[in-house]
Amino acid sequence: MTDLLSALPKLEVCTSHNRYDILIGHDVLADPNSFAGLAAGSHGVIVTNATVAPLWVKPLERALAGRHQHLSVVCLPDGEAHKDWSSLNLIFDHLLSHGCDRKTILYSLGGGVVGDITGFAAGCYMRGVGFVQIPTTLLAQVDSSVGGKTAINHPLGKNMVGVFHQPLRVVCDLRTLQTLPAREVRAGLAEVMKYGPIADSAFFDWLEAHVDKLLALDPQALTWAIHRSCSIKAHVVGQDEREDGLRAILNFGHTFGHAIETGVGYGQWLHGEAVACGMVLAARLSAAAGLIGIELAQRIEALVRAFGLPAQPPPLSVDTFMSLMRRDKKAVNGRIRFVLLRALGQAEVREVPHEWVHQVLEQALRTPGSPGVH
Amino acid sequence: MTDLLSALPKLEVCTSHNRYDILIGHDVLADPNSFAGLAAGSHGVIVTNATVAPLWVKPLERALAGRHQHLSVVCLPDGEAHKDWSSLNLIFDHLLSHGCDRKTILYSLGGGVVGDITGFAAGCYMRGVGFVQIPTTLLAQVDSSVGGKTAINHPLGKNMVGVFHQPLRVVCDLRTLQTLPAREVRAGLAEVMKYGPIADSAFFDWLEAHVDKLLALDPQALTWAIHRSCSIKAHVVGQDEREDGLRAILNFGHTFGHAIETGVGYGQWLHGEAVACGMVLAARLSAAAGLIGIELAQRIEALVRAFGLPAQPPPLSVDTFMSLMRRDKKAVNGRIRFVLLRALGQAEVREVPHEWVHQVLEQALRTPGSPGVH
Repeated sequence: MTDLLSALPKLEVCTSHNRYDILIGHDVLADPNSFAGLAAGSHGVIVTNATVAPLWVKPLERALAGRHQHLSVVCLPDGEAHKDWSSLNLIFDHLLSHGCDRKTILYSLGGGVVGDITGFAAGCYMRGVGFVQIPTTLLAQVDSSVGGKTAINHPLGKNMVGVFHQPLRVVCDLRTLQTLPAREVRAGLAEVMKYGPIADSAFFDWLEAHVDKLLALDPQALTWAIHRSCSIKAHVVGQDEREDGLRAILNFGHTFGHAIETGVGYGQWLHGEAVACGMVLAARLSAAAGLIGIELAQRIEALVRAFGLPAQPPPLSVDTFMSLMRRDKKAVNGRIRFVLLRALGQAEVREVPHEWVHQVLEQALRTPGSPGVH
Repeated sequence: MTDLLSALPKLEVCTSHNRYDILIGHDVLADPNSFAGLAAGSHGVIVTNATVAPLWVKPLERALAGRHQHLSVVCLPDGEAHKDWSSLNLIFDHLLSHGCDRKTILYSLGGGVVGDITGFAAGCYMRGVGFVQIPTTLLAQVDSSVGGKTAINHPLGKNMVGVFHQPLRVVCDLRTLQTLPAREVRAGLAEVMKYGPIADSAFFDWLEAHVDKLLALDPQALTWAIHRSCSIKAHVVGQDEREDGLRAILNFGHTFGHAIETGVGYGQWLHGEAVACGMVLAARLSAAAGLIGIELAQRIEALVRAFGLPAQPPPLSVDTFMSLMRRDKKAVNGRIRFVLLRALGQAEVREVPHEWVHQVLEQALRTPGSPGVH
């Protein structure tokens, strides 16, 4: 394992103002060397949740021992339903009541929700303090921890309030995936497989050939999947930090996906599950737009199903879908914009006539079949 | 008046990522030309408060007519006590329920509180939309509207949660000052006079000679005071957008001032009143540290009093002061850092032994005299 890892090139994200490393490995969370070279104020604060805390706080505290004069822990309630102002404010309350200054470093220990909230808190506390991402879910490791997007949800839309704030480092510990529920592993694989259709056809082929190994958490297969995903994301973010153009392709499946998450209520579907179904719909829309053949849409659907992810949308009305998608951050002037495929490994953002979207949704919603989650 | 204005050089703020104009003039708020050349999405949203709205919303709406397909107004409750999450969330609720997208432009119409909240909302909504500052108080025109600092208060500290987000333009209409209560004019003069001690001794001399004209809202005197203040601020912000160094001198008087505002309860003292008293204390501390002579501290106190501003702190205990100041954003590791004067027109940030601070506070608190506000 160590041999494979050391053979992989080091990963770095380079934006116009920042440059930071992504470490991927076994036990890196518990290794003081993983945090070497980082700024260290007198206060360090680990932000985590009630599920992750008993598993990983102690090893992380040991790894950080001596880096700060004061090291404390904020424990948030677990789940997407708590990705809101009240969780954010728990962090601010803690920081202020502990006398944390502008040199404070936050350590986000958990999945995408913890990472997004912690990053937003770091971006706003005293107008910005440093933070380190230590993602403990596959989804966070391959997607949300890299790239500096932070946010909380609003009752009227997911991730509507947030800032761009790049972490000082991303530390992905493969060992944390061993304690991850199988459902969350599958949800993470949705974001992994995304990188194939949008950027790398060979990676998609590889994923199709390694479904069983990935579901079994084979270390070599997982390492390659995470490394390749982070590498593509780092490349895209480096070219377009603030999503003025290229970066939007990372949202493949997310326009439909966010509508699903909001429509069924946060936390009912996992983000990765909603994205999986969203990718199936976006691929079908690409086919309906004549950009790709229907076989490619079917191939994407087959991989979604092979990973045990839902290809069938939940029973929301077409109108509900449309009205939720109009609030998508990519929408301009009420016109919804989708990430569509032009080929396997190539994506672009474009508007399509709303009738086509209606048609794809109506057909999908008519198809009998369980939504395939839970 | 127009002649004087046209003779003054155009003001521009240049940071590493942004460049924007500061317009100063009579009736500029009501002039469509003041907004020419700005980005204009399909949604424009004026954010204001219940006091300002009846005076200035209509002229602004007329000036903006035709710039956006949808122009709407959010009215916040007035006052520093409402500079909090719930006001911020009123804006987010409005933006989302009106289908405002990423190209939306916010127009902040009001004093520093409205500007800080609107700027923060613009900095966070969908991770950042554009906004225009239209400050209607003297304090906001000469200070808070320029430079991109945005924030809300937290019960444990003022401006503790916010971001740096530069406006697209600042439009200072002198006519709005005519409806400003006298107490608010005086509070604004506190921020005007700040620029003398920290950056421009000749401006300080000029202020001493024009106290009566400024208090009488003489247009020429006001124009020069605002222009010179904005010019100094633009210069400082251009060199240090994110307050890594030089910019901190703009906080002269603010370390004591914020403690006063928080200590007596937000909204009891106006920000400018607290800063005025803070400048007197900071000048005395500079003298106690041997950096300046006591005569200069007395000269600053005399100008504060001449403007009808409080030089005497409110009856808080020294311990309360110290504990509030330890939460100042400039503090590092519990050590409070002050902006001190080295001469008239020269300031620097430094730590001083806490005993000296104690001494200055004890002496000031012992001195009989009304706090001089309200």
